[in-house]
Amino acid sequence: MNQIKVFSPATVANLSCGYDILGLCLEHIGDEITVRKIKKKGIYIRKMKGFDLPLDAKKNAAGASALALLKKLDIDFGFEIDIFKIVKPGSGIGSSASSAAGSVVAINHLLGNPFSKKQLIQFAMEGERAACGSAIADNVSPAILGGFTLVKSANPLDILSLPTPKDLFVVILHPQIEIKTNDSRKILPNKILLTDSVKQSANLGSFVSALYESDYDLLSRSLHDIIVEPYRSKLIPYFKDVKQISIQNGSLGCGISGSGPSIFSICKGAVIAKKIAREISVFYDTTSIKFHTFITKVNTTGVRIKQ
Amino acid sequence: MNQIKVFSPATVANLSCGYDILGLCLEHIGDEITVRKIKKKGIYIRKMKGFDLPLDAKKNAAGASALALLKKLDIDFGFEIDIFKIVKPGSGIGSSASSAAGSVVAINHLLGNPFSKKQLIQFAMEGERAACGSAIADNVSPAILGGFTLVKSANPLDILSLPTPKDLFVVILHPQIEIKTNDSRKILPNKILLTDSVKQSANLGSFVSALYESDYDLLSRSLHDIIVEPYRSKLIPYFKDVKQISIQNGSLGCGISGSGPSIFSICKGAVIAKKIAREISVFYDTTSIKFHTFITKVNTTGVRIKQ
Repeated sequence: MNQIKVFSPATVANLSCGYDILGLCLEHIGDEITVRKIKKKGIYIRKMKGFDLPLDAKKNAAGASALALLKKLDIDFGFEIDIFKIVKPGSGIGSSASSAAGSVVAINHLLGNPFSKKQLIQFAMEGERAACGSAIADNVSPAILGGFTLVKSANPLDILSLPTPKDLFVVILHPQIEIKTNDSRKILPNKILLTDSVKQSANLGSFVSALYESDYDLLSRSLHDIIVEPYRSKLIPYFKDVKQISIQNGSLGCGISGSGPSIFSICKGAVIAKKIAREISVFYDTTSIKFHTFITKVNTTGVRIKQ
Repeated sequence: MNQIKVFSPATVANLSCGYDILGLCLEHIGDEITVRKIKKKGIYIRKMKGFDLPLDAKKNAAGASALALLKKLDIDFGFEIDIFKIVKPGSGIGSSASSAAGSVVAINHLLGNPFSKKQLIQFAMEGERAACGSAIADNVSPAILGGFTLVKSANPLDILSLPTPKDLFVVILHPQIEIKTNDSRKILPNKILLTDSVKQSANLGSFVSALYESDYDLLSRSLHDIIVEPYRSKLIPYFKDVKQISIQNGSLGCGISGSGPSIFSICKGAVIAKKIAREISVFYDTTSIKFHTFITKVNTTGVRIKQ
């Protein structure tokens, strides 16, 4: 096999109670990445459709992660990559992670899978570094492993896969404004109250228990963010309204996806998900801001081979 | 039945990664509390052996928790309580919680169990308030529920029971010095770094996962405290030495029990537990401080009816 095409999913990081820790893999939105083995050594981005991103492999998330992988091997050939980018950069649903994860899973497959999925995360983090300045793990981990993931530590890398309760759906509302990860990091305080840290931490611990127990009520009680959301929500127009409508219509929790501006709602069952998507769309239509909404199940497999 | 005797266990709160959140119930050390139904209304502490504590029910942990329970009932009789106190006040292994939990479980049993275990926690917290000034839940919860517990929220009360992996043993070293909970709270900073909060929180989430997975290695990687231990360990003579010896001899983790001065080590299997108890005793014998050590399994049932 000399060519492979993969679907590389969007992801939701943080999930309210797990800033820089939790991540969740989505099913129905992601990039399509094709990788071909070539005689020439190195990594080459051949096509970039959808959005205008760097073709220089070192500066491209998919290219930089692939280069990190190649560094670990002594091979006398290379790969070229076509990217059909669906996940909009700066959307808050892991755009760079999607590309960074897809290329390394594809190359690993073409090579006969010499690396484990967890090893691929380390390479994909280099894609994040190229795209947004720091080698974060909270989007690439769910993109590669699927389901819910927990970044116990980024350095040394220690990632956990957590169970996925059945029937979970995610509604994303993506306002068409751009927030850069670095800008949304700068807005956060350097220090927080110890009492707030205890509350947030108790929610994260409870969230992990809720996933193991498939306890949807506990999941809902845990999906709160008292540390980051009060700051970042100011950057997202009508965040509070969307959250209120989502909760009123039965979502288990609603918060900022990654560093925003996308807003996620987690809910049980397709009926509630459709209702939430409809109601928040009706509301956002009354604003002057363009937006997309979509509904997805949790993707429990991560990057998927298409052909 | 007009009289009952219960064993009311000692507990370890905080467990390194869960300050004010986690708790663990011990098996082989606890108070013995006898409760008798009497004609006279009210709660009366009749005997107090072991340590010199208030006989005024309102000021006694066992009495105050029992009074909180009685407030919820319309009954024309009362109870008298004999306390054989084993868990030394100020030891850091839930001395007041032991008494507070024991009396309400005993009275509830004599009344035909009108309250659930989780309801009893709320009453026992009033015992904590009487004994140490605040209605904390992290010791009374494991004392009543057994096993590992997580205080998601103290107000409103929201307590989780977590699974107990087999083969876990706990070694306690109790230096015979007294640290008051309030003093050890004052030493803590009001604010902490957001990055430290993230690390601690990731450890707590990983600890919860480790309990569900019976993953002893992950348990060990999660048992770290970067927030509280750096401050409180200064109050405990030779803490660092004990911790080092404990880890070197195979403990999964070692930290301050509650607000100290007791030091806990969690380990897998009795052989390692005995070795750790021996080695830290040999070391502590070289200091001028009196101490006790003991080895216990995890108590998965909480307060136990003796007769």
